[in-house]
Amino acid sequence: MDTLKIIKIGGNIIDNEDALDSFLTKFSMLKEPKILVHGGGKLASKLSVQMGVEVQMVEGRRITDLSTLEIITMVYAGQINKTIVAKLQANECNAVGFSGADGNTIVAEKRPVKKIDYGYVGDVKKVDIQVPELLLESGIIPVFCAISHDQKGQLLNTNADTIASELAIAFSKKYKTALYYCFEKKGVLKNVEDENSVIEKITPSQYKELIDAGIIMEGMIPKIENCFYALENGVEKIGIGLPSMIFEPNSLHTILKNS
Amino acid sequence: MDTLKIIKIGGNIIDNEDALDSFLTKFSMLKEPKILVHGGGKLASKLSVQMGVEVQMVEGRRITDLSTLEIITMVYAGQINKTIVAKLQANECNAVGFSGADGNTIVAEKRPVKKIDYGYVGDVKKVDIQVPELLLESGIIPVFCAISHDQKGQLLNTNADTIASELAIAFSKKYKTALYYCFEKKGVLKNVEDENSVIEKITPSQYKELIDAGIIMEGMIPKIENCFYALENGVEKIGIGLPSMIFEPNSLHTILKNS
Repeated sequence: MDTLKIIKIGGNIIDNEDALDSFLTKFSMLKEPKILVHGGGKLASKLSVQMGVEVQMVEGRRITDLSTLEIITMVYAGQINKTIVAKLQANECNAVGFSGADGNTIVAEKRPVKKIDYGYVGDVKKVDIQVPELLLESGIIPVFCAISHDQKGQLLNTNADTIASELAIAFSKKYKTALYYCFEKKGVLKNVEDENSVIEKITPSQYKELIDAGIIMEGMIPKIENCFYALENGVEKIGIGLPSMIFEPNSLHTILKNS
Repeated sequence: MDTLKIIKIGGNIIDNEDALDSFLTKFSMLKEPKILVHGGGKLASKLSVQMGVEVQMVEGRRITDLSTLEIITMVYAGQINKTIVAKLQANECNAVGFSGADGNTIVAEKRPVKKIDYGYVGDVKKVDIQVPELLLESGIIPVFCAISHDQKGQLLNTNADTIASELAIAFSKKYKTALYYCFEKKGVLKNVEDENSVIEKITPSQYKELIDAGIIMEGMIPKIENCFYALENGVEKIGIGLPSMIFEPNSLHTILKNS
């Protein structure tokens, strides 16, 4: 069985047309099966400013009111998703764009209001891979944006990292699945000031040691918790690093594995 | 063989949430196979104003510069398409949204500059129904917005009526195909001032007579030319009227047929 590669890209690739073109060219040449998941980048914030919609952040997280949800839907599912699909077609990679509403793929629940009201943010409840699987089997590549829905007609904003890990978990029941988080660094760093101090492998027990030693901290903690959750639920391995980790597997990056 | 219904809706339904909800509820209950094609409505012009992008019309047609194309991509493929798909899912109608780039479905060529430079407007060159057909066969409903691509990475703006007729022509090679254009009147009128003066049937020879008599004129001419082009190329019949023509086939509307 071929390994299914689920690859998540974020703002550092999406916001830079040359980086995006170069990534998509290499992605197109990757042996199938593969799925792309993209975040939003700076375009949503830029559009919010243009439209006079205030960007509200609480504890580092974006609050999604109805106007923000509309902007995100337009930017993520419209401009970014269709631009990526058109560019993939130009590379003869036949792709279809998805939000979580398409094919009823990603059903979420509006996050309950506790201390903070995050607005139209969705916590994933159910993933149905019927449609993307149907496409993959025909050699057509699903491209997901970070939007889910509640099955009652409401679109919701869901973190792209979560979309990627939930898809990877769901597909791991049918495929051997590897998940790749592309970001702006070569991997998880031992020393944030040394770009090359990449921790090449992290297992759950090593992770506890790294937390205790204060080496993994802040924003990296939820990201890695999310990764171990995926590994516990069937995903084979997870890579964190620059896109080169996918195209040149010997390049420096971090691998997360159960053992 | 079941008749495939391809239904195009425009601004008069999209811009009114109650009308849209009511239409989508009935659409969800329609016997399959079916495809929905939607136009843009007023949202694109509203967003253009908000973003300070000038709406340029020449001879009644929108000029699509790069900023306008971005707005259209955001509104049509993002906000409207995903809202419709989410609403269909709420009605337990499993749907997938498409631009012409998705599945390489609708390939167009940027309109050559002659007297007028229409900008990023695409004239359809090729329709590939592989992916929407794959979905239809699994009972999943394709929902198309009015965006095509040139297979070189460029998205293009293509009239929704044309998207609908080109899809109908392509599908008529595999299915018996009926095409429905929903608009704000009960049908093609003999007398524009009498809402009930609907011409119930138009064949090509009757069409010539109606043109000569000055009864069909102006904006209606390209619309009907487009219809006869589809009929000549395999589409079985075309309905023009209120959405009720689809759900209550005995209601007053115009049918175009070859004979």
